Amino acid sequence: MKRITINASTEYDVLVGPDLLKNIGTVLSEAGFAPGRMALITDSTVDELYGEQVCAELKNDGYEVYRCVFPAGEGYKTWTTLGYILDYLAAAEIRRSDFILGLGGGVVGDLAGFAASVYLRGVPLVLAPTTLLAAVDSSVGGKNGVNLGTGKNMAGSFYQPRLVVCDTTVLSRLNAAQFAEGVAEIIKCGMIADEKLLARIVDFRRSRATGFVPVISACLRIKGDLVARDEFDRGDRHLLNFGHTPAHAIERCSGYRISHGQAVAMGMSIMTRAAIAKGLADSECALALHTALLAHGMAQRCPYGAAELAALARMDKKRQGDIVRLVIPEIPGRCRVYPIEVGELYSWLAAGLGEA
Amino acid sequence: MKRITINASTEYDVLVGPDLLKNIGTVLSEAGFAPGRMALITDSTVDELYGEQVCAELKNDGYEVYRCVFPAGEGYKTWTTLGYILDYLAAAEIRRSDFILGLGGGVVGDLAGFAASVYLRGVPLVLAPTTLLAAVDSSVGGKNGVNLGTGKNMAGSFYQPRLVVCDTTVLSRLNAAQFAEGVAEIIKCGMIADEKLLARIVDFRRSRATGFVPVISACLRIKGDLVARDEFDRGDRHLLNFGHTPAHAIERCSGYRISHGQAVAMGMSIMTRAAIAKGLADSECALALHTALLAHGMAQRCPYGAAELAALARMDKKRQGDIVRLVIPEIPGRCRVYPIEVGELYSWLAAGLGEA
Repeated sequence: MKRITINASTEYDVLVGPDLLKNIGTVLSEAGFAPGRMALITDSTVDELYGEQVCAELKNDGYEVYRCVFPAGEGYKTWTTLGYILDYLAAAEIRRSDFILGLGGGVVGDLAGFAASVYLRGVPLVLAPTTLLAAVDSSVGGKNGVNLGTGKNMAGSFYQPRLVVCDTTVLSRLNAAQFAEGVAEIIKCGMIADEKLLARIVDFRRSRATGFVPVISACLRIKGDLVARDEFDRGDRHLLNFGHTPAHAIERCSGYRISHGQAVAMGMSIMTRAAIAKGLADSECALALHTALLAHGMAQRCPYGAAELAALARMDKKRQGDIVRLVIPEIPGRCRVYPIEVGELYSWLAAGLGEA
Repeated sequence: MKRITINASTEYDVLVGPDLLKNIGTVLSEAGFAPGRMALITDSTVDELYGEQVCAELKNDGYEVYRCVFPAGEGYKTWTTLGYILDYLAAAEIRRSDFILGLGGGVVGDLAGFAASVYLRGVPLVLAPTTLLAAVDSSVGGKNGVNLGTGKNMAGSFYQPRLVVCDTTVLSRLNAAQFAEGVAEIIKCGMIADEKLLARIVDFRRSRATGFVPVISACLRIKGDLVARDEFDRGDRHLLNFGHTPAHAIERCSGYRISHGQAVAMGMSIMTRAAIAKGLADSECALALHTALLAHGMAQRCPYGAAELAALARMDKKRQGDIVRLVIPEIPGRCRVYPIEVGELYSWLAAGLGEA
């Protein structure tokens, strides 16, 4: 088992290793969460796979578990579901001295994190990610959110967990599509900060549980470093948005039928091609990105045009007045934030899609 | 006009003086809120009194105002109303570089503050309290919240405003009941930290607009000092809960027919009498409190028994395991936090109610 420490406004550990859920009671009590009342928040899919086992293990170790299950799917990452969870916590009389364990993928982490941050104005949070995407990305850094009618993650907070438990045995059981979702974000980490990770990811395979520890650790170190420097996303943390400005527009264009990971793969390709076309990036960037995406069979060709994407990208949540901060590669393993006027979005996307 | 600076995790000013709403556009632009898009959040009562005037004034000064009005009353301080406000902000395309102005009493401040803290994970907030209670208490310190089915303020966050605009002309128009609500919290401030304020409040009258500035300023300095020392309510800030443990139970017993201010008056009397009975407080405390409450015609006799109150006070949101932190007076102008076992609550309440 590997222990990575994240230095945000509060310091916390991420534990990465095999069979951690099987021993979750021991893991929690060794981390200082004394047996007592707690809420387990999860979705229906994860509950079916791991709910019984995790509850039994916790009860065995003396925890009084209140299990709050909501329907699986991004469609349930809503204000209404969050209200349901808060009512559940209140009915279970969870107190500030108790804690919440969020068990699941990104949606569970977002809802459990948001709930923990506002219930009684904040109760301790532990996250146990069960997808590769959640393990390398959303479980660390403290961002959470729910979707409003007008867009994704339109409401949320910054709230750091006290502990993240990342069970690689669980991750090695993911199917190909779930695995690919995480790989896209790992490639992103490589592109922005770690050329070696970019090379290593080419040989990363989902069935080999042992391969997970070094790859996940590398991503967490990169993300942890950016979060420590810029917890509230006003500067360098923005690098983690490489590929995400076009990706969010692609997801919306597709009515969310194109997954986040696939959209990020397309978005990174667009930004890389555009930056090279504008003479701002080394052409090696395209080769490195292409090789990594190809090794995992990820589509790079975007089915939408620059005009369609620009119309949606204009509404970017992170837009500041008329400025949109793009993230562009310079060399493999290094990106930078590049602010443009909102009116220039079209020309960037056109260059990235080869329309220009 | 008086300017009081609050040193929380972020520093901000409270402006206290006459006719500030009449000149709100100038006040905001002088404070650095450049004309642009903004959301005005208020309730139906305040909107009827000041909505048109404030909107017209803002538009005159070049602000693009989106006005979000919800039904007045504590019964609307709900998760549903908060969701309505967030949807409104999203539909108005309020961005992180815009700001929210919450105009109203405590309920408006709580909803506008909570909304500002989670919309896009945080947008700038200005509060303009229109009740004395909000002016001296809830508009400063960054706590906000909504009620869940199980209790008051069960969900919320800590989120500091960027500016508070406290118009004493508006406050001098309040009716006797609204005025008394604020007086209870002013007396509380006097009891915990300022014997002179306690003496001064005896002659405080609602029709004299000039009297508001020094009294409100004194309260804000006390609260600002406690918030600076303990923003997240883990230590000294708890002193602001003097009288509130019994008060919350009294409000619930009455089905919220007894107002918060009246309940706080009763709660302070209970805690003072109990502390004297237990030999922990100087008997002068009772006289000072009684004189101040009597000058404003506030009831001190509680219609409920110790058993009823203890049953509800046990569920205190701030309870930590089996410990409830009471606040007890020592001498007029000085209180301290006094932790007891939850099982001792009954004996304290019985002593405070003269049942023992």
